[in-house]
Amino acid sequence: MGEPTAATPPEPSPDDRRRVGLKDVARLAGVSVKTVSNVVNGYVHVTPKTRARVERAIKELNYRPNLSARNLRRGRSGIIALAVPELDIPYFAELARLIVAAAEEHGLTVLIDQTGGSRHREQQVAEGIRDQLIDGLIFSPLALTADDLSARTDDTPMVLLGERIHNGPADHVVVHNVAAAKEATLHLIALGRRRVAAIGAQDDAAGETARLRLAGYRAALAEAGLPFDEGLVAPVAAYHRADGAAAMARLLDLAEPPDAVFCFNDLLALGALRTLLERGHEVPAEVALAGFDDIEDGRYGTPTLTTVSPDKREIARQAVALLVERMSGTARRGTREIYVDHRLVIRESTTGRKIP
Amino acid sequence: MGEPTAATPPEPSPDDRRRVGLKDVARLAGVSVKTVSNVVNGYVHVTPKTRARVERAIKELNYRPNLSARNLRRGRSGIIALAVPELDIPYFAELARLIVAAAEEHGLTVLIDQTGGSRHREQQVAEGIRDQLIDGLIFSPLALTADDLSARTDDTPMVLLGERIHNGPADHVVVHNVAAAKEATLHLIALGRRRVAAIGAQDDAAGETARLRLAGYRAALAEAGLPFDEGLVAPVAAYHRADGAAAMARLLDLAEPPDAVFCFNDLLALGALRTLLERGHEVPAEVALAGFDDIEDGRYGTPTLTTVSPDKREIARQAVALLVERMSGTARRGTREIYVDHRLVIRESTTGRKIP
Repeated sequence: MGEPTAATPPEPSPDDRRRVGLKDVARLAGVSVKTVSNVVNGYVHVTPKTRARVERAIKELNYRPNLSARNLRRGRSGIIALAVPELDIPYFAELARLIVAAAEEHGLTVLIDQTGGSRHREQQVAEGIRDQLIDGLIFSPLALTADDLSARTDDTPMVLLGERIHNGPADHVVVHNVAAAKEATLHLIALGRRRVAAIGAQDDAAGETARLRLAGYRAALAEAGLPFDEGLVAPVAAYHRADGAAAMARLLDLAEPPDAVFCFNDLLALGALRTLLERGHEVPAEVALAGFDDIEDGRYGTPTLTTVSPDKREIARQAVALLVERMSGTARRGTREIYVDHRLVIRESTTGRKIP
Repeated sequence: MGEPTAATPPEPSPDDRRRVGLKDVARLAGVSVKTVSNVVNGYVHVTPKTRARVERAIKELNYRPNLSARNLRRGRSGIIALAVPELDIPYFAELARLIVAAAEEHGLTVLIDQTGGSRHREQQVAEGIRDQLIDGLIFSPLALTADDLSARTDDTPMVLLGERIHNGPADHVVVHNVAAAKEATLHLIALGRRRVAAIGAQDDAAGETARLRLAGYRAALAEAGLPFDEGLVAPVAAYHRADGAAAMARLLDLAEPPDAVFCFNDLLALGALRTLLERGHEVPAEVALAGFDDIEDGRYGTPTLTTVSPDKREIARQAVALLVERMSGTARRGTREIYVDHRLVIRESTTGRKIP
């Protein structure tokens, strides 16, 4: 795919003649045909005001770009791919919705590819099994390494999400995992808890998220002068509710069970919460609980879940903006790593149920 | 796209010569090149045993079909699209995962398209904005009508999901909505509840699911000899947790609040549950609660949620099988409507918390 060619407006194909064309949009918006083409193709060097005017005209005239003609002429489809491990992990589903919305503002359609975190599927994604179909890729890998991606021969623009690959071969949008995990753990300690457990450790290569969040947890203990007790760190095979529920059951079976638990994502925390309530433990009176991700689910459970809330809207916005810059060739050389803010949202699972 | 052409094996392109080819796979699997091609292209007239043998050989040799060459020669990409309204409705996320898995068994990759239920985006999907990219479409529309789809000029094979369009222009996989809603309501009545409310009514054109589930609710009341009270039917703008929470608040403000609620999906029920617990009501002692969809979320809340569980795995399996038949040209004329089973899963929100 490489650098995009100059944005010469496509000539109307025979098929287009009966349809609303770029010229009609340009006339109504009071801009040049080239500007309309830039908007339609998601280029960034259009002011927001002009973009809005063109998009209004596109809407009014119900203009639809002739995709196949554009494809053939310019090697651009107006489609980007989002590849994530699992859509039924709500964090990825919420992120997908926000990325679809952010891409829409650039006139781009998103197709979503669920890799299951399998190395084979991720390789297909990275090596552009459908490079002729998409203009760019936002990719949250679980199995591939930085070396895999450096060896990639496909040159479709790509932006990485998640903790798997750093300092790497592509632009990257990420949150401060260590700092965020430390904040959540310090909050539990500040409640007076002294046996703070962690659920979510992982040994395997895919466990980069686990490694960073565990580092934050340990940093908090060290800062508070609490000993690190390996017995309070519960490993899990995956980050689903069932894993959290099973890990919590093991922690409760300890001779000295924890009085607080930091879970490395909200699904683990929701599973742990179920085990605690099922066994008759009060949350937070006996065991306080915090998660990570701020999925909607945790806002409606009882008790509601204290959690680290990454700015998902900003992750989506930055990922799409970086990708559009790469696609339009306006990005500077060298790859960028963008850190997005988070905040600790304190709710009933650490401060108590508020039932009147 | 139309009928597929005969499955002549593609000749190796110059690019293929350094790579593992169909012939290598055929040799290892002990089958003809044509059979390998049939497997790779997802045709159904291959026995499961042969398919398994070929897939083992593909895996062993790490064979990857040359997609662009196949595209050009045969008009097939091995990619199908799944278009759903919203991925952060867990029902759709769970269904997406199962459809990806079912498609994989046919050697097909799924790209997912989130329409937001917007008429414009659904029209793009139906009219094949990317018909050159995909071999088939599994589509859960919210805004389009049967007439819209009958007028469709794109002939990409399509299978419909959901309640929006019946007796229609394409194969359709669906559950018995009226019967299922009736069962859930009868279960609430059988607990001795006499003021059974419904959350999820919708007036607008998109509310076909609502219409069917309301019919089931009314049928249950009639069968039990209970009066239908319009004041106990809570309309909602959408099927999210927030809508359920707000609707429950309105029902609790009635002079005579309900003693049971049937919610038309689990998200509504989880929102309603939050409102009930927040206001200090015991569930189910004071108000029993049932939902629809059996999302994982409802299995881990406290109390766990009684719900109608559609056989989602079977919906996915049937949708992909119908689509593959259409794609391979082996489907009979006329469209088919396949009803998939469901069962009522009874949990704590109607039978009481089980805390030791």
